[in-house]
Amino acid sequence: MNHFADRLTDAVRTYKNPTVMGLDPIVTYIPDSLKENAAYLTDDPEQATGLAIIQFNERLIDATADIIPVVKLQSACYEQYGLSGLSAMRLTIDYAHEKGQLVILDGKRNDIGSTAQAYANAYLDQSRLIDGTVMSAFNADALTVNGYLGLDGIQPFIDSCEKQGKGIFILVRTSNPSAGDLQDLVLEDGRTVAEAMADRVHFWGQNLIGQSGYSSVGAVVGATWPSEAESLRIRMPNALFLIPGYGAQGGSAKDAVSGFGRDGLGGLVNASRSLMTAWKKHNMEPDLFDQAARIEALAMRDALQQALRQR
Amino acid sequence: MNHFADRLTDAVRTYKNPTVMGLDPIVTYIPDSLKENAAYLTDDPEQATGLAIIQFNERLIDATADIIPVVKLQSACYEQYGLSGLSAMRLTIDYAHEKGQLVILDGKRNDIGSTAQAYANAYLDQSRLIDGTVMSAFNADALTVNGYLGLDGIQPFIDSCEKQGKGIFILVRTSNPSAGDLQDLVLEDGRTVAEAMADRVHFWGQNLIGQSGYSSVGAVVGATWPSEAESLRIRMPNALFLIPGYGAQGGSAKDAVSGFGRDGLGGLVNASRSLMTAWKKHNMEPDLFDQAARIEALAMRDALQQALRQR
Repeated sequence: MNHFADRLTDAVRTYKNPTVMGLDPIVTYIPDSLKENAAYLTDDPEQATGLAIIQFNERLIDATADIIPVVKLQSACYEQYGLSGLSAMRLTIDYAHEKGQLVILDGKRNDIGSTAQAYANAYLDQSRLIDGTVMSAFNADALTVNGYLGLDGIQPFIDSCEKQGKGIFILVRTSNPSAGDLQDLVLEDGRTVAEAMADRVHFWGQNLIGQSGYSSVGAVVGATWPSEAESLRIRMPNALFLIPGYGAQGGSAKDAVSGFGRDGLGGLVNASRSLMTAWKKHNMEPDLFDQAARIEALAMRDALQQALRQR
Repeated sequence: MNHFADRLTDAVRTYKNPTVMGLDPIVTYIPDSLKENAAYLTDDPEQATGLAIIQFNERLIDATADIIPVVKLQSACYEQYGLSGLSAMRLTIDYAHEKGQLVILDGKRNDIGSTAQAYANAYLDQSRLIDGTVMSAFNADALTVNGYLGLDGIQPFIDSCEKQGKGIFILVRTSNPSAGDLQDLVLEDGRTVAEAMADRVHFWGQNLIGQSGYSSVGAVVGATWPSEAESLRIRMPNALFLIPGYGAQGGSAKDAVSGFGRDGLGGLVNASRSLMTAWKKHNMEPDLFDQAARIEALAMRDALQQALRQR
């Protein structure tokens, strides 16, 4: 089944869980035991940081891979540690795949023409090296993208969806306080900028609707704006919604599922900090972060299932 | 002088040249001689590709560093070759600095809160490693960013401008055919989305205006839309304009300088393909790509100077 939205919908059905675990490692989240172990293995602080990140991620994946079908890597968190961080990103993507999970790379990439193609090559497709061989730089299943540049900034990613069975999530309505600076501006036809973006996403995704009824061209729709999520669902009936803002950013399970389709599918709810630092909430030792994440992941799955039943 | 817009304006005055050389290596641009040399140095095709890119870039910089004050690296072109490509990106940034050039990283990054901060750490600031030491992942002078997420997606970059003397260029009007899909939509108050973004850029940059009269919060304004560049200049009198689209994308020197300030400054004109592949236009051997780039760079400088005089 080489269609992203179908693969994803199938995984969510199998796990009975639309949770995405955000793997956004910030060094202060990593317990001392892992830091000390990494420092024992190498004297180079950059390499040690990369090692600690990959071990942190692998333990989170090991503890939750039977519960959570999808992980999302926040590219910025890896880029900030240079080549060691990016090496950890690459290894994490491959590790999650080994454990049967789908991987979304949250890079919010955007550019035009050949440059957009280069981003598609980097994350969804392959790149041709100087000797003619091809390589996969970072082998994600889907990438978040920003649509401000219009269709010719999106087309290379759509091609990857068609030809490689990959997916994209286009930013429509984000979960941050000042999201409205641009996204809430009202057009002369009465739509907001976010609604205009939603209409583009719907249009761009029409040729990529799978047997699940969902398109491999999805949308990022913040969970902190539940009423908007409902109205955006009407504009994008076939879009998978990637929903940030659950937990630490203030969105509840009820808010988070407000944008799901009537079939109880079509949405993915991301939690990063609330899973990675669950040991704090549960008064556990920092070194038990992975077991705390598992407890929190089960609670989140149950809360989302309940919220979906009660709609 | 730790103010980006002042440093940049000073460099443009000294070189009498507002050209930015885009270093966007695509393997087909690299002559066979460099590819063969890289393959001689390593059997690993990824490493060989990274080596060929860095040698290609260094020769372009060597041939033009006395003419062109600024280089711009298109991040996507490096990311597509994974860690070897990103290593070449890091080395190119440092090499351009050694040659006295300013470096813009064209990453069009965008995110919120701590993630936007991580991007700022990665490209403009520093990151704290697990042992408490700090590192500079990619030490650019300025970064292109996308403002769709509003102010709290921009604030961490503005902080880097203030505290580290760095700069940003926010996408306002891009040079691609479908730029208008979103950017030309008309708001109920009569402004286009691009004009609304321009007003934000002007507002966000007010506290970062230097002695040059220009702010370290700049704007990307495509050269293929000259009349728009003039009207956007009125909305953003203090913004440095980063102007893509010259040469290969169809913009002329006259078009390119239409958004400059009355002082003949405030604009940077990027050329990538027309410099990197100038050997074709001048019927030279591929291996003389660097000398061809120099000839083309001199012609471009003269054309821009003439266009500025004739306004």
